[in-house]
Amino acid sequence: MNLDKLREATRAQMPDKRWKHTLGVVDSAVELAKRYGGDPDRAELAALLHDYAKAWAVDRMEAVIREQGLPAELLDHDKELWHSHVGAWAVRAEHGIDDEEVLDAIRYHTSGREGMTKLDKIVCLADYIEPGRAYPGVDLIRERARHSLEDALVAAFGSTIGVLIERGKRIFPLTVLARNDLITQMKQNNNGG
Amino acid sequence: MNLDKLREATRAQMPDKRWKHTLGVVDSAVELAKRYGGDPDRAELAALLHDYAKAWAVDRMEAVIREQGLPAELLDHDKELWHSHVGAWAVRAEHGIDDEEVLDAIRYHTSGREGMTKLDKIVCLADYIEPGRAYPGVDLIRERARHSLEDALVAAFGSTIGVLIERGKRIFPLTVLARNDLITQMKQNNNGG
Repeated sequence: MNLDKLREATRAQMPDKRWKHTLGVVDSAVELAKRYGGDPDRAELAALLHDYAKAWAVDRMEAVIREQGLPAELLDHDKELWHSHVGAWAVRAEHGIDDEEVLDAIRYHTSGREGMTKLDKIVCLADYIEPGRAYPGVDLIRERARHSLEDALVAAFGSTIGVLIERGKRIFPLTVLARNDLITQMKQNNNGG
Repeated sequence: MNLDKLREATRAQMPDKRWKHTLGVVDSAVELAKRYGGDPDRAELAALLHDYAKAWAVDRMEAVIREQGLPAELLDHDKELWHSHVGAWAVRAEHGIDDEEVLDAIRYHTSGREGMTKLDKIVCLADYIEPGRAYPGVDLIRERARHSLEDALVAAFGSTIGVLIERGKRIFPLTVLARNDLITQMKQNNNGG
């Protein structure tokens, strides 16, 4: 795997704005990996690829979900969630990426999941706080990210769920399970330390 | 089953403030049943009994959950959720209430669930909007309750989830599933009509 070629292939999947976002996520993910004892190389790779399928047409994503055995329940939920699973499939199929931890970090970067790995947390949080992000509350999440991956992600998921409530939209249950699990982890760490 | 005796037995389980709330939920539930074509008698019975175990000691509730085969996952979640399931068990064990629809409405009045029955919706919403309630946003939920059980409950569950997010507390997944399902029902009704 040649990282320069992978960069060019990824850039070719998306408009310039999304590519700029991707570079921001790479920077933030590498920084978080260094701060929290993660693997900066895997963080860079997963961050580079996290939105690989984001700009794909809905029909193309739907075809991959149906034909490649991806979780069918995705189709019942917001299309926003599709590109993560489709992207993980695509980078394996098109570029031979077979590091399961990297693939999981791509797959769950939008929803989160119970039992998030450190790499899952780094990529997911980097996506929320990369320098180009400017939604209400992002600075609070950036502030928390200086002290705790888990605390910052609880705030980030809370912000996402809050927006869905405001808009009267359905909430992806996995995000709620991910947030609950992070709160449990934080309590256990506090009790343990 | 003698309703007057049941009233006295229920009143004996709780302090005066909770009894006053119970009478408010009875009034609101009967009103909602009449407005939305529900059964006012069952609404009255379920509303009367909905907080039967609310003031029970935590140890007593925990013993019932463990010894009577109630869902063990309740113990992992907020104690606020225990009294509904324990109450449904108690009114059957102590008063022979065996109307499964009434028992379900008691059991799920705090969390909601997927596929809520009309009686579930009536009791759950009445609990949110009875005249004694005075939390931020209650008037908006009362307003919605004039037009749609589902729309009002989506707002009510959204309000509960929002408070849990603000407080950094875990969210009961069943409430999210209930809210998602109500949104789906509303969309189907709109498409159908």
